[in-house]
Amino acid sequence: MNRPEPLADVHRMPDVQSAPDHRELAIDRVGIRGLRYPLPIADRDGTQTTIAQCSVFVALPADRKGTHMSRLVALLEERAVPGAEPIGVHALRAMVDTLVARLDAPGGSIELAFPFFLRKLAPVSGIASLLDYEARLCGELREGRYVQEIGVSVPVTSLCPSSKEISEYGAHNQRSIITIRARTAAPVFLADLVRVAESEASSELFGILKRADEKFVTEHAYDNPRFVEDLVRGVAARLDNDARLDGFVVEAENFESIHNHSAYARIARGL
Amino acid sequence: MNRPEPLADVHRMPDVQSAPDHRELAIDRVGIRGLRYPLPIADRDGTQTTIAQCSVFVALPADRKGTHMSRLVALLEERAVPGAEPIGVHALRAMVDTLVARLDAPGGSIELAFPFFLRKLAPVSGIASLLDYEARLCGELREGRYVQEIGVSVPVTSLCPSSKEISEYGAHNQRSIITIRARTAAPVFLADLVRVAESEASSELFGILKRADEKFVTEHAYDNPRFVEDLVRGVAARLDNDARLDGFVVEAENFESIHNHSAYARIARGL
Amino acid sequence: MNRPEPLADVHRMPDVQSAPDHRELAIDRVGIRGLRYPLPIADRDGTQTTIAQCSVFVALPADRKGTHMSRLVALLEERAVPGAEPIGVHALRAMVDTLVARLDAPGGSIELAFPFFLRKLAPVSGIASLLDYEARLCGELREGRYVQEIGVSVPVTSLCPSSKEISEYGAHNQRSIITIRARTAAPVFLADLVRVAESEASSELFGILKRADEKFVTEHAYDNPRFVEDLVRGVAARLDNDARLDGFVVEAENFESIHNHSAYARIARGL
Amino acid sequence: MNRPEPLADVHRMPDVQSAPDHRELAIDRVGIRGLRYPLPIADRDGTQTTIAQCSVFVALPADRKGTHMSRLVALLEERAVPGAEPIGVHALRAMVDTLVARLDAPGGSIELAFPFFLRKLAPVSGIASLLDYEARLCGELREGRYVQEIGVSVPVTSLCPSSKEISEYGAHNQRSIITIRARTAAPVFLADLVRVAESEASSELFGILKRADEKFVTEHAYDNPRFVEDLVRGVAARLDNDARLDGFVVEAENFESIHNHSAYARIARGL
Repeated sequence: MNRPEPLADVHRMPDVQSAPDHRELAIDRVGIRGLRYPLPIADRDGTQTTIAQCSVFVALPADRKGTHMSRLVALLEERAVPGAEPIGVHALRAMVDTLVARLDAPGGSIELAFPFFLRKLAPVSGIASLLDYEARLCGELREGRYVQEIGVSVPVTSLCPSSKEISEYGAHNQRSIITIRARTAAPVFLADLVRVAESEASSELFGILKRADEKFVTEHAYDNPRFVEDLVRGVAARLDNDARLDGFVVEAENFESIHNHSAYARIARGL
Repeated sequence: MNRPEPLADVHRMPDVQSAPDHRELAIDRVGIRGLRYPLPIADRDGTQTTIAQCSVFVALPADRKGTHMSRLVALLEERAVPGAEPIGVHALRAMVDTLVARLDAPGGSIELAFPFFLRKLAPVSGIASLLDYEARLCGELREGRYVQEIGVSVPVTSLCPSSKEISEYGAHNQRSIITIRARTAAPVFLADLVRVAESEASSELFGILKRADEKFVTEHAYDNPRFVEDLVRGVAARLDNDARLDGFVVEAENFESIHNHSAYARIARGL
Repeated sequence: MNRPEPLADVHRMPDVQSAPDHRELAIDRVGIRGLRYPLPIADRDGTQTTIAQCSVFVALPADRKGTHMSRLVALLEERAVPGAEPIGVHALRAMVDTLVARLDAPGGSIELAFPFFLRKLAPVSGIASLLDYEARLCGELREGRYVQEIGVSVPVTSLCPSSKEISEYGAHNQRSIITIRARTAAPVFLADLVRVAESEASSELFGILKRADEKFVTEHAYDNPRFVEDLVRGVAARLDNDARLDGFVVEAENFESIHNHSAYARIARGL
Repeated sequence: MNRPEPLADVHRMPDVQSAPDHRELAIDRVGIRGLRYPLPIADRDGTQTTIAQCSVFVALPADRKGTHMSRLVALLEERAVPGAEPIGVHALRAMVDTLVARLDAPGGSIELAFPFFLRKLAPVSGIASLLDYEARLCGELREGRYVQEIGVSVPVTSLCPSSKEISEYGAHNQRSIITIRARTAAPVFLADLVRVAESEASSELFGILKRADEKFVTEHAYDNPRFVEDLVRGVAARLDNDARLDGFVVEAENFESIHNHSAYARIARGL
């Protein structure tokens, strides 16, 4: 564990960041960004070690010149040592409380963005393989109120209903990404949000597909055509019914196979 | 010019997007994204042709199944033909009005993000060279109200005040990016926002610097140390005094030369 | 036009880059990278202004400490002023000759990477729209020999033959990118390479497609299934027969709609 | 563990990839790319779990139509299960042998690119923090010969010698990235290559720096100015003397604090 900062250090060199500032401008958030750390993340199926892009911010009062960036990095360093407690929706609240206490700040936030894996079984052969998603955990203490958000970006297959309808045979399809950002009032697993997104797609994705599986997903997508509008409506309808959420934003982006641009849709509730 | 859609086309194939939808879920924005087009942009110093990343969205009522993506692309195709009128803050309002009229939509928005160039003169030699910035123009009609935003991302030099203060010689410095997003009530040039950002840096950047210029910018940065907190406070103070703005967000990110992460700060007013 | 560097400048400040170096290590290439400039590019259909990412390098002999970076930027600044001659495969040779002469270097290279547009007509409606590609022009003078390469990255549709074969209906398809890099012994247009790539796809892409066009491309792709192996073999067979090429590399990457990874293939001849 | 593919599956559905091809064009490499997997990597200080971007390719003879992509994914799935053996320079050879055997291919290659962490102690306070690097492991069996390459991208500080020389005070500095790619004839640790790069910089980087450390690195960089040419010459000189290497490429890119472009240099030996 790191030793506390030597007392001599404090006295010999000016602490410019602690000097007063006279412009009378508070700063909403100041801190570090783009800091990469290996962190243990806890979710529905257990703990996985991932590599997170981390942002750690504090609110800065109008009369203070700057913040102490090294203390922000230290917060993450402590969570990356062997034996550190996994981070889940509970641990984040505690980390934010520690942050504002150590920095003596009126508020602060921590955002972690990381790859997240789930093991899936191919639909016919049952062969197992991992699939990678992007996930986010964010906690913010602002004006005394704590707010937590979780997010996932889920790759899926979307097949176009009009292409299917108007064509003699075939239907254009492509990879799409459904992104959910949810403000949680009660614990919600990342894996739960992934399930919601995959349930509304033309088909979910799998790493390993044998021929019987490929036939299944091809026909399943054809049987379940979805416009980008359908993807977001389907997910929004499900999230609307989830009492654990205070609000959400759902987006879908189709990387159209017949164009060099994307189709996109977005529904926001309470955010 | 493109011919109107053949009548026969309308009658022979189902228009699936125009079918009714029964889930009673309106969509905030649906349309296209990631569409790249060469466009003429008008600003303070004249018109420049750039390559824009374009997003074109409409609001979709709860009872309609989907929108007509091809009409959204057509809107940009018309602005990219020889002789088309340059796009500036005035043209964007007209484009959004055209958009909602053609799509018969309750609202809509157009966002253009593009490289933007200004010619600069090196501080001592006077040698001219272009510098590239990132710029954004966004117009949105929502519930009858039109809102316009412009933005710039400006690369600058920042030199650290505490590094300078505590060291016998030298001071760590790095490239930083100051990003301004402004809601405009009256016309504001992109070049004006660039000036505000460059004025608050330790030093602005130049493409061509001869030795006399390099000496100048090195010493100038040393004479004007700025924390990331100073960058955003300096810009915010200037924008606070600009009556043409309804609100703004200013961010600064320092790609720290002594770390593998960034220092970051953000001030928002009215957005 | 920029004035020549003041004589006084040369005498007052040390030219550290021109000092000798004693490690006896020549440098293959040194210069600038990530320099963005608006440039006029000439190809089959005329001239278009685009935004290029530019790299300009020279070879550095073992006994010289460094090169003069500002002269490299100046080379591009001259080509970006109003009235400058468009850059095509001819202009590049001249630029490289100028580069090595001004820098008094044993060799040098210029690489330009930029978005490139072609106007296309939808297959049934005939409606016109632009499509964006990525292109590259590279010229290198090394040990007295001049070598030129051009390249294109072409987005297309690919539809999977086995998915089609084994399924009752439908077939998974996706956007793919075919990348060609060709060493040219005689002039070849970027637009020619684009044509080769689009001819070997399940279908080419279009910005604007009306319903009759969407039906056409959907059925056309279904009638022309292509593995990623077929894409590269098809292109390689055509390029093998082109006497203007000294060598080439063709790659194809399918952003599989049923997986979260890509299928990829590569054939190289003489490079 | 995954069950073997059901026999019935083989007989009922055509295996299109195993069909013959008549164009007489061999494919240099075909397979999967952009596949993300959590993998245990073994290096000098032990094993760390990281998230790798994986590419797995085989050579395809002229008479075969396609390869079996799912078997390529399976190779990585086996290495990502609990209890799987960590991957280091030894394991890679075995994985490539397994690859070509299972795919009955004349050759094949595996490339893993991943974040890699080392724990470092700040130079005065001794405070520990992780630093993140990018690393690569590649093994290829081609025409009976096995070749292995390892690589690292190391962020460092570079301070400009001419800026220091010509200025009254200060010197521009910035973050730079030194990239080493080495063909190894005997085992070499990633951590060893990182050390070589950090030793040749104006200063290495640290996550946590207290004031005494910041003073140290600021003055140390000022005492050790390095052109981008010096960075690559310094590293090349060291690698030239390492008998375990058959060849290497070293590159350095300075994200110049006084420009919006980079300075770049490259030395290659035997590659």
